[in-house]
Amino acid sequence: MADPNTKFYIYGRNPLREALQTQAEQIEKIFIRNSLRDSQVANIFDLASQNRIPISHVPGPKLHELVGSVNDQGVVALKSAASYQDFGNWLDKLDTSEYPAILLLDGIKDSGNLGAILRTAAGAGMAAVLVPKHGQAPVNATAYKTSAGTAGRIPIVRAGNLNQTILKLKEAGFWIGGLDMNGDTNLWNLEADRPLAFVIGSEGDGIRPKTLEHCDYTYHIEMENKVESLNASVSTGLLCYEWKRKHK
Amino acid sequence: MADPNTKFYIYGRNPLREALQTQAEQIEKIFIRNSLRDSQVANIFDLASQNRIPISHVPGPKLHELVGSVNDQGVVALKSAASYQDFGNWLDKLDTSEYPAILLLDGIKDSGNLGAILRTAAGAGMAAVLVPKHGQAPVNATAYKTSAGTAGRIPIVRAGNLNQTILKLKEAGFWIGGLDMNGDTNLWNLEADRPLAFVIGSEGDGIRPKTLEHCDYTYHIEMENKVESLNASVSTGLLCYEWKRKHK
Repeated sequence: MADPNTKFYIYGRNPLREALQTQAEQIEKIFIRNSLRDSQVANIFDLASQNRIPISHVPGPKLHELVGSVNDQGVVALKSAASYQDFGNWLDKLDTSEYPAILLLDGIKDSGNLGAILRTAAGAGMAAVLVPKHGQAPVNATAYKTSAGTAGRIPIVRAGNLNQTILKLKEAGFWIGGLDMNGDTNLWNLEADRPLAFVIGSEGDGIRPKTLEHCDYTYHIEMENKVESLNASVSTGLLCYEWKRKHK
Repeated sequence: MADPNTKFYIYGRNPLREALQTQAEQIEKIFIRNSLRDSQVANIFDLASQNRIPISHVPGPKLHELVGSVNDQGVVALKSAASYQDFGNWLDKLDTSEYPAILLLDGIKDSGNLGAILRTAAGAGMAAVLVPKHGQAPVNATAYKTSAGTAGRIPIVRAGNLNQTILKLKEAGFWIGGLDMNGDTNLWNLEADRPLAFVIGSEGDGIRPKTLEHCDYTYHIEMENKVESLNASVSTGLLCYEWKRKHK
């Protein structure tokens, strides 16, 4: 993983188009000079849209601030600090015989939480963290910093549509679990004798009802004082370490 | 606990001096009009300094922004959103026969972490969270928000000098424990058959060496991938819930 304090930019139309075609998952954001409109740029817009990469329209001098006085042709892209892996490639190479566990993030919004979750997943020995392409905090410098650099010690896999990803994981032998305040199993009774993918819902809302239906196991955390839930990184930590405890 | 979105201010010299004498632990910050110097104000400076309350020197109109057009006499103080309890009073009333556990924070800097820790402590059924007067993020609106309002469901006790507090807790029958990467007991082997006070060190440095010497038990968390530690709120969550698991 690259040093998160260094920002990597791609500039120029052909380099950007190629990056969008071959490694779109590593592009966080595209900056385009205001009022630029022609067929090449339209093509970049299309590719960015297909890959759900946000586009920012900025004045020309802003581009020079990012990349210096180069011939940027009006387009600059920010590359992610993380080295994402492709879901298909990762799944092809995965050995499930030792019952690995992975996290499947679904809507974590805060980069600090994301970093804490990556760090905990690395500490607990999760096999990977799957991060959807959209609706999710990016693995940026903030996340990297909160992870205390540990984000680079665990595969971060860029996944597409959540429900399709879940179906493919089930085909590959994974069972799906998730935390829910109404979950039917006490987290302390989690069993780890099979490959497990844990869905981690968003900070405010938890796992979406439609996604909960895909879960083979739902776990609740015992609470006192009428507390309904814990912070996302804390409850994820309890889940990861419950798995580690049972998996050793 | 008061609504954290409402800020409570005290203004005027006598009201502020009285508050400093009787409930200094509830004052977060004092604002004093620039270039105000006389014996009454000197007295306020002394009391604030004794209680380690930060003072901000601001232009007169800034005071009006805080409290409106009142006769503020050049001094305004922000009251804490939390209702702190006094350590001595809290300890006098405490029943240790059912082996309670408490957290003793030592240098948590981030209000978000503080809020997550208060929420977790409430969820796990800790008897109180002890917060030192200095070197510590205040229980402010941010902490209250991160705690999702649960900060009000657990006693927050304002403690003075950390080492003296530890000695008084030991006299009251508490055993002292803390997380440390070199701790000699695996956290999973924690025993909860006695009153326990867990020291929670700062985000960057953990528990100070001098404080570690006071610990009867030091626990380590098993780690993979050469991860050295987890985020403060995550490791505190694992500690609180290990206690809850053993204490039920």
